[in-house]
Amino acid sequence: MNPIFILTMGDPAGIGPQIAVNALCNSQERPYRVVVAGDLEVLQKAAELSGLSPVFKIIKDIEDASFAAINVLDMGEISTSEFTVGIPQAQCGKAAYRYITEAVSIVMDKKAAAVVTNPISKESLKLAGIDYPGHTEIFADKTNCDDYSMVFLLDNAAVAHVTTHVSLRSAIELVKKERVLKQIRLLSRSLKSLGIDPPHIAVGGLNPHAGESGLFGDEEIREIIPAIEQAQSEGINASGPYPPDTVFNRAFKGEFNGVVAMLHDHGFVALKSRDFEHGVNITVGLPIIRTSVGHGTAFDKAWKKGCDVSTASLLCAMDAAYRMTTPP
Amino acid sequence: MNPIFILTMGDPAGIGPQIAVNALCNSQERPYRVVVAGDLEVLQKAAELSGLSPVFKIIKDIEDASFAAINVLDMGEISTSEFTVGIPQAQCGKAAYRYITEAVSIVMDKKAAAVVTNPISKESLKLAGIDYPGHTEIFADKTNCDDYSMVFLLDNAAVAHVTTHVSLRSAIELVKKERVLKQIRLLSRSLKSLGIDPPHIAVGGLNPHAGESGLFGDEEIREIIPAIEQAQSEGINASGPYPPDTVFNRAFKGEFNGVVAMLHDHGFVALKSRDFEHGVNITVGLPIIRTSVGHGTAFDKAWKKGCDVSTASLLCAMDAAYRMTTPP
Repeated sequence: MNPIFILTMGDPAGIGPQIAVNALCNSQERPYRVVVAGDLEVLQKAAELSGLSPVFKIIKDIEDASFAAINVLDMGEISTSEFTVGIPQAQCGKAAYRYITEAVSIVMDKKAAAVVTNPISKESLKLAGIDYPGHTEIFADKTNCDDYSMVFLLDNAAVAHVTTHVSLRSAIELVKKERVLKQIRLLSRSLKSLGIDPPHIAVGGLNPHAGESGLFGDEEIREIIPAIEQAQSEGINASGPYPPDTVFNRAFKGEFNGVVAMLHDHGFVALKSRDFEHGVNITVGLPIIRTSVGHGTAFDKAWKKGCDVSTASLLCAMDAAYRMTTPP
Repeated sequence: MNPIFILTMGDPAGIGPQIAVNALCNSQERPYRVVVAGDLEVLQKAAELSGLSPVFKIIKDIEDASFAAINVLDMGEISTSEFTVGIPQAQCGKAAYRYITEAVSIVMDKKAAAVVTNPISKESLKLAGIDYPGHTEIFADKTNCDDYSMVFLLDNAAVAHVTTHVSLRSAIELVKKERVLKQIRLLSRSLKSLGIDPPHIAVGGLNPHAGESGLFGDEEIREIIPAIEQAQSEGINASGPYPPDTVFNRAFKGEFNGVVAMLHDHGFVALKSRDFEHGVNITVGLPIIRTSVGHGTAFDKAWKKGCDVSTASLLCAMDAAYRMTTPP
């Protein structure tokens, strides 16, 4: 009925501890319970810095999580005297990694319904000798999953990418029917898991104006349209290809539930230009539910008096986890 | 002191006549005078439809333009009984074209300070047998200019594009030092003409994360950085290359005055995702000043009772023309 989520504390030197305590002080009316996988003393100091004095409850058994307190699985990894705020460092990378592996293991054991993550620093991980390109790959590895993808949520629109961290030249070569189709299917599945059923999925073009019927490039005709037609034949409400410069705004305004973007800098330019404060990152395809804040560690803003970093993304990430754990 | 602008009425069947009368009713406190190159009866009907009853003044001599009336250079091209609202048609293309050529000729003769344009339909032009790819090319042709470019203004940030209406494959090949440098220079010049001196210009990358030092593509290293260095050696405050997904938001938030975008769907995805209601289009390099609304004819919304199409872009276009005609 009232699912329990494990919230990782994120990199201790970053904004994670502070937004965690601030968000949890503002989420006690919500229909889920949250247990922070982190370090109690760090969270207490973060609360003090924000002028908050919440009740903390140390949790041994996940089921004991309370609505009325900030529940902490106190992992004894690090204390505030052991790190410098605002910079990447080995001991923080190690601690952040341990919070994640513990959270994954709890949810894999079905003791909690989802993992929600605070930001980590790849640099800190690397300094700790932990070699993953990012957060998502840790989840994939620890859950033995090799067919996963990221979806970004903003203002009720979800965005999936056919290509991400490759050169533009390589990205063009990767825009193939099968790869486009895979993202359409994944996005459809993600939106259904968020309770949107059936979702209307818009597919963006690769070229300006989606190629204007072959005038500026033919990838739309050769690869993208066949993928859309195949998806339609599987019963997915997909349409397009639409010009990249208008499709995202149409989705943000409610015309589509999701957009499949061909390029990293179609989707992310749209998301970040719109202001990503409420952005949420979801990993799709894993055997467990995982949502994440859309922003990074914000080392430059971390551990300052008050809390000038918005908790909006974290609250949205927890709400998205709730939608995914609670079928409509 | 109080410059006079010629405002073209745009395609009669589109939103132009209506936003013209609405904007001019709201701009009489502004420090410039405006003469509409159009048809009086069409403007009168557009005012009626919006429930407005402004004073119209027929202008023979541009200098007679009044602050207190809607000044009209009544060209006798078309009346409301001669066209169907909301669709492209030959007679509207011909009229819209004549308003432009008249406006250009007046400003070339120095009887007015700038041309501000309402939207036209390429389809209507084509139906009238007038063969230009767009508005800008008419201006280039009529002013004998072959070195021009478009700059878009939104929320105090200006965006120029190194490539526009070409396939993505061709766009990559066009990202060359000289071409990037040309846009940096043009954008610097445009911003100075808007009174921003010296402007801070950010140059976006081509590849995701601007290539991460050659990890995802080397166009940044081979072409873009040398262009930035050359611009700097010419005294231009240019920097970059910045990741395309964050550079626009940084500019919108005031960190830079302008961005040189490598791709159509870097700049336009950013502009349109942010909501282009206040967007203004400026043609740079012409011997005359020309600004334009950032939107199209909006045939689907034109000639409806009231006026649900915003006049914001037109008011911004007139204000931009004022900044360009009035050195600080």
